[in-house]
Amino acid sequence: MKYKNKFLVILFTALYSIFQITDCNQQQSSDPLPSWNEGNTKQSIIDFVNEVTDESNPNFVKPEDRIATFDNDGTLWSEQPYYFQLQFALDRVKILAPEHPEWNDNPLFKAVLENDIKTVLSFGEHGLLELVMNTHSGMTTEEFSKIVKDWINTARHPKTNKLYKEMVYQPMLELLDYLRANGFKTFIVSGGGIDFMRPWTEEVYGIPSEQVVGSSGKVKFEMRDGQPVLVKLPEINFIDDKEGKPIGIHQFIGKRPIAAFGNSDGDLQMLQWTAAGEGKKLMVYIHHTDAEREWAYDRESSTGRLDKGLVEANEKGWTVVDMKNDWQKIYPKYLEK
Amino acid sequence: MKYKNKFLVILFTALYSIFQITDCNQQQSSDPLPSWNEGNTKQSIIDFVNEVTDESNPNFVKPEDRIATFDNDGTLWSEQPYYFQLQFALDRVKILAPEHPEWNDNPLFKAVLENDIKTVLSFGEHGLLELVMNTHSGMTTEEFSKIVKDWINTARHPKTNKLYKEMVYQPMLELLDYLRANGFKTFIVSGGGIDFMRPWTEEVYGIPSEQVVGSSGKVKFEMRDGQPVLVKLPEINFIDDKEGKPIGIHQFIGKRPIAAFGNSDGDLQMLQWTAAGEGKKLMVYIHHTDAEREWAYDRESSTGRLDKGLVEANEKGWTVVDMKNDWQKIYPKYLEK
Repeated sequence: MKYKNKFLVILFTALYSIFQITDCNQQQSSDPLPSWNEGNTKQSIIDFVNEVTDESNPNFVKPEDRIATFDNDGTLWSEQPYYFQLQFALDRVKILAPEHPEWNDNPLFKAVLENDIKTVLSFGEHGLLELVMNTHSGMTTEEFSKIVKDWINTARHPKTNKLYKEMVYQPMLELLDYLRANGFKTFIVSGGGIDFMRPWTEEVYGIPSEQVVGSSGKVKFEMRDGQPVLVKLPEINFIDDKEGKPIGIHQFIGKRPIAAFGNSDGDLQMLQWTAAGEGKKLMVYIHHTDAEREWAYDRESSTGRLDKGLVEANEKGWTVVDMKNDWQKIYPKYLEK
Repeated sequence: MKYKNKFLVILFTALYSIFQITDCNQQQSSDPLPSWNEGNTKQSIIDFVNEVTDESNPNFVKPEDRIATFDNDGTLWSEQPYYFQLQFALDRVKILAPEHPEWNDNPLFKAVLENDIKTVLSFGEHGLLELVMNTHSGMTTEEFSKIVKDWINTARHPKTNKLYKEMVYQPMLELLDYLRANGFKTFIVSGGGIDFMRPWTEEVYGIPSEQVVGSSGKVKFEMRDGQPVLVKLPEINFIDDKEGKPIGIHQFIGKRPIAAFGNSDGDLQMLQWTAAGEGKKLMVYIHHTDAEREWAYDRESSTGRLDKGLVEANEKGWTVVDMKNDWQKIYPKYLEK
C-alpha cells in the first residue's frame, strides 16, 4: 500500500505535467481571431504580431514599446446614421430643454426638439460642436460621468434596437485581446469626447481611462463647500482629429505607435505618423463595405468619410479590412440578421 | 533501484514545494521599504496599502482604481539650488548662443551667458518660462528627446558632482516598487516639462512615458520631405501646477488618485483633490528637513515652497515625511556623505 500510494503520487504528477503542456499547446494553436475570415488581411495582422514579438526576429519590439492606437467611431463601434455621441447630445438637449426656453428661438436647438435631424445635420461640424458644448458642460466632471454611464447602459440604436455599447465590432474586440495577450498596450485615439468615452471603455473594450485619448473641453478647478470640484466649461480644449491625432498621441502617450487602426480620413495623419517610425509597423483601415450587416460607405459619407486615406493605403500597401469579406461576424452575440 | 528512484522523485517534489512556500513567505515578510526608518510615517503608508489591497477590508480598492500620483521635483528627486530643468535650460542657452547674437542684448540671456544665476533668478517665474520656451522649441519632438537623453546621461550637479538622474530618492524608488507590487499604477504629475521628463522616467523610476503628466508647449504637425514630424513651438499649452494638477489628472488619467505625494504648495490642490474622493486615501508631503544629507527648506524657499500645504497637512492628519528622521538613506548607492 505504501508503494502504491507513491505510485499514485507519481502518476498524478506526471498526468498533471502532461495536462499542463497539452493545455498550453492548445492555447497556442487555437485561433486568436475566430471572427476574422482566413485571408491576406487576417494574415497580415498575425504576421506582424509574430514578427515584433519574436526575440530572434530583427523586427522584434520590446513590450514597453508595443503601442497600438485605435480610432473609436467606425473602427471599434458603428457610427451610422451619425456619431453615437451626437445621439447622446440630442437626448441631452431634450432633457435640458425645460431649463432653456431660449432654445425655442434657436434654429439648431429647435430642429433638435422637433426631431428634424436633416436640419440639425445641415449645420455641419459647427452645429454638432455647438450641441456638444452646450450639453457637455455646466456640471462637474463626476456628474457628467454619471450621466454618460446612465445613457450608455440604457440608450438604444433606432435601427438595431440594441444598446449602443453592444454595437461594437466582435472582430475588433478579439484583436484588442490578441494584441494585449502579446504584450501590447492598447489605446483609443478618437475625435470623440474623452469624457464621453472614459466612463465605459474599460467595461466594453478593456481599455482603462488613462489609455483613452480624445477631444476635450476645458475644465475649471473650484472649491464648493470646502470640497474641490472640476467644472466642465463650454470651451474647446483640444480637438483630437486629423493633425490632432499625432499631437494627441505625443501629448498623452509620448511614444510613437507601432500599430494604428482607423476608418476615415480623420485617421490618416495618425497612420502616417505611425508609418514614419523606424522598424516594422502595421497600419490598418477598416473599410465599411457591408450594407447588409452594417453600413456601406466611404467617399460620399458625411460621417467617417474615407477618400484620401484609401488612396494612400493602396499606394503604400497598408492593410485594408473589407468588412463584408474579412469579418465573419460584425457584432457580438446575436446582433447579425 | 526502481523504488529508490521514485523515492528521489517524491523527495525532490516535496522539497521543491517546501522551498517554494518558504520563498513566498520570505518575500512577504521581508521589509518592502528598507530605506525608511520604522515609525508612524512608514507605518501609515504600509497600513494604507494593506487596507486597500485586502479584499475582506471595507476599504478594499480594485486594482484598476489603485492610482498613485507623484510630483517629481522635490518629491522623487532633488530640486536645489534650483529646478534641475532650469540647469538644462541654462546649458542649452550656452550651446545655442552662437546662433543667437541678439541674446547679448537681452539682460536675462546675458546673465545666463555670464553665469550670473542671481540675476537670472531675479526674473522670477516669468524669466524661467522664457528660458524654457526658447530652449525647448524650434526642433522636432524626436530631436528634443535626444537632446534631453544626452543631457540626463552626462550632466552633473555642481554640489554633489553626481549625475542629476542619480539624485533621486532611494526611499521613493522603494515606495514606487512597493506600490506597483501591490497592483498600483504609478504616475508622475509634475509642473516640470512633460517632454523633459519622459525620455528618462522609465529607466530611472520605472514609470513609462504614458504615465507622465506635466507642463507642455504646443506642437505642430508638419510634412518634411514627405514625412510627418511634430515641431515644438515656443507657446505654452498647459501648466501642470497648483489647480493645473487636478486638471491634468482629469485630462490624462481620467480617474481620481487614491494616493498622492508632493512636497510643495504647488501640490496642495492635487492632495485636496485626492482627499475629496470616496473611500480610504493617502496624502503625503515630503518635508525637506535634512540640511546635512540633502537640503532643509520649506516656507522661505523660492523652489518647492511649502507653507499652506504644511498647515493643511497638520490640520487634516496627512502623512508628513521628515526626511532627516524618516529616511535612512537619501540617494541610491554611495551618494550620502
